[in-house]
Amino acid sequence: MLYKKHVFICTNQRPEGSRISCGEEHGLMLVAEFKKLIKNKNLNTEIRAQRTGCMETCELGPSVVVYPEGVFYGKVQMSDVAEIVNEHLENNRIVERLQLTEGDFCQLPWKKC
Amino acid sequence: MLYKKHVFICTNQRPEGSRISCGEEHGLMLVAEFKKLIKNKNLNTEIRAQRTGCMETCELGPSVVVYPEGVFYGKVQMSDVAEIVNEHLENNRIVERLQLTEGDFCQLPWKKC
Repeated sequence: MLYKKHVFICTNQRPEGSRISCGEEHGLMLVAEFKKLIKNKNLNTEIRAQRTGCMETCELGPSVVVYPEGVFYGKVQMSDVAEIVNEHLENNRIVERLQLTEGDFCQLPWKKC
Repeated sequence: MLYKKHVFICTNQRPEGSRISCGEEHGLMLVAEFKKLIKNKNLNTEIRAQRTGCMETCELGPSVVVYPEGVFYGKVQMSDVAEIVNEHLENNRIVERLQLTEGDFCQLPWKKC
């Protein structure tokens, strides 16, 4: 596998008045913060964080997913990034307070539960 | 896990004359083709394909990664999409002729091998 952890951060921006979206500005701030903290730890060749389009978890966003585990985090704020980097990316401990559960996914309008 | 397979397709466009990039136009065409073929099979709530930013595999692009396996495909053309969907996404058979290997990754300028 090219990356031990591969983090995708939604930066999707929808027009005002349509379905809620993660938002480009907030998303890009999150991306920059992830990149900075990963680089500070010299983990940037093993761990990759990058922007991505809509993950269809809009109502639970701003959304972040960490692969290969497939752990989704929801309502991620700038103040949460250090915890995700220190706990999950560096030490493999999922940040449960932010993790989206099957119950959360069932709130998504397209999800059959 | 929210998706059985989550496919990220690079749509990164760099300015002409800088480092090679996957290209927005080609990338978005690939995204549309993946989405169409996945939807045609009624797999679109289990399998998600979407655009993403640079995966740092530029020299091997256009690049696609399939998680949770972490299988990277390189030099993906429109004519390759149906094979990836039919073989890998639907039937779990990796398309080896397009798969990027450790040897390929070692050609990347940032990769220590």
